[in-house]
Amino acid sequence: MSGNIELIAIRGLGEVYPDNDLAAMIGEAALNAGLQLLDGDIVVVAQKVVSKAEGRLVWLDEIEPGDQAREIALRQQRDPRLIEVILRESASLIRSDNHVLITETHHGFICANAGVDRSNVIGDEWVSLLPVDPDGSAERLRADLRRVTGANIAVIVTDTFGRAWREGLTNVAIGIAGMVPLIDFRGSKDDYGKDLSATVLAIADEVAAAAGLLMKKTARIPAVIIRGCNFDSGVGSARLMIRPRERDLFR
Amino acid sequence: MSGNIELIAIRGLGEVYPDNDLAAMIGEAALNAGLQLLDGDIVVVAQKVVSKAEGRLVWLDEIEPGDQAREIALRQQRDPRLIEVILRESASLIRSDNHVLITETHHGFICANAGVDRSNVIGDEWVSLLPVDPDGSAERLRADLRRVTGANIAVIVTDTFGRAWREGLTNVAIGIAGMVPLIDFRGSKDDYGKDLSATVLAIADEVAAAAGLLMKKTARIPAVIIRGCNFDSGVGSARLMIRPRERDLFR
Repeated sequence: MSGNIELIAIRGLGEVYPDNDLAAMIGEAALNAGLQLLDGDIVVVAQKVVSKAEGRLVWLDEIEPGDQAREIALRQQRDPRLIEVILRESASLIRSDNHVLITETHHGFICANAGVDRSNVIGDEWVSLLPVDPDGSAERLRADLRRVTGANIAVIVTDTFGRAWREGLTNVAIGIAGMVPLIDFRGSKDDYGKDLSATVLAIADEVAAAAGLLMKKTARIPAVIIRGCNFDSGVGSARLMIRPRERDLFR
Repeated sequence: MSGNIELIAIRGLGEVYPDNDLAAMIGEAALNAGLQLLDGDIVVVAQKVVSKAEGRLVWLDEIEPGDQAREIALRQQRDPRLIEVILRESASLIRSDNHVLITETHHGFICANAGVDRSNVIGDEWVSLLPVDPDGSAERLRADLRRVTGANIAVIVTDTFGRAWREGLTNVAIGIAGMVPLIDFRGSKDDYGKDLSATVLAIADEVAAAAGLLMKKTARIPAVIIRGCNFDSGVGSARLMIRPRERDLFR
């Protein structure tokens, strides 16, 4: 019988710069707040601080937009340099109209603007990119946080993505370490002994969404502890959460 | 400065039958567990128990499948009576292949099988449907829980929906009362003074997903209290979360 779950904000991280030791900063901020990481915690970290620590920032003044970027920028009345960066971060274009540019990133994620973002980055001319290997980012944070705190935890790197059909963004898991992201109930029985035929729960995305309730966009909470959530601590990867192209009816 | 958030399972509800007083059952189960609802709590209730209490159950033996249902059932090797019920619950067919049937419900939700579900319903011949008016269900539960417990709360009715592009189901809000479901940051500034141009957070779906971490599919936890989550307690509706057809690039 599982207990309740606590969502605990880690505040006071301070500004993150390239090559900062993010795990040390998170560990210190937790310590300063009187928080101790425990075995079985999930630490959810915002993509933005991970990208900053990894130097995944681009100075738009250095970008020379190509023809496709200029064409989209003209149609969408946006900065052609920004569009160029988005296209470089994209493996394919999924949909675009006069407002929205939805692409598949090189990781396989489908989201607006390939995750390229101007907000919460210093200066108008800088934008942040998604980490090159968010699973790797999560795994390094997990190992480093274990070294710093001694706790055996899972780590999720999260970003806010839009959805088809529904308004608003939600936090999803783009990098995962120490946690199996999907719970597969197929073959198990419901409470009446019937097969649960088509039930795979995206637990890592639900964890990320829960953390999103504390992170919000302006709250300066780049990391959240999820305590008390049962999960399978096997090998995880956010790539397991990407529906294979051949089974995706919405590309 | 917001504090932490607690997710608290309400257990021991017992089987729900048509015309049961669900709010009284939830209030009693909470009381038996030593839980007191507080002003500002969000109570997330699983669609399945709401549908059962509202008698939204269909006996498949009474269903005569039409031609379209028979054709889809043959292609998907499924029960034609079940397909007939799904089609009756649908306003339009969005996508189907040899395995999946994704439709728009009469409410406007886009999900697999129009929310019609065989699991966790007694007997192989019964299926459950989504509530006719999930916002109304949430509003009645909210008023009734206030009467029973004295607490001024918000209520979300949740179901697990699939997503485009990503594997696995997550809990989303299909009925909302006492809570504005979207937080619109447009026009506000990020932590660096820049406009947050395209940021609308689907807080109600993040609350539902958080509750999903405790509900799971077989855990007999049909209601979860979310405590400590800041939200706008204005008039809400899950319909606000449906992207209007003319702005939806993925139908």
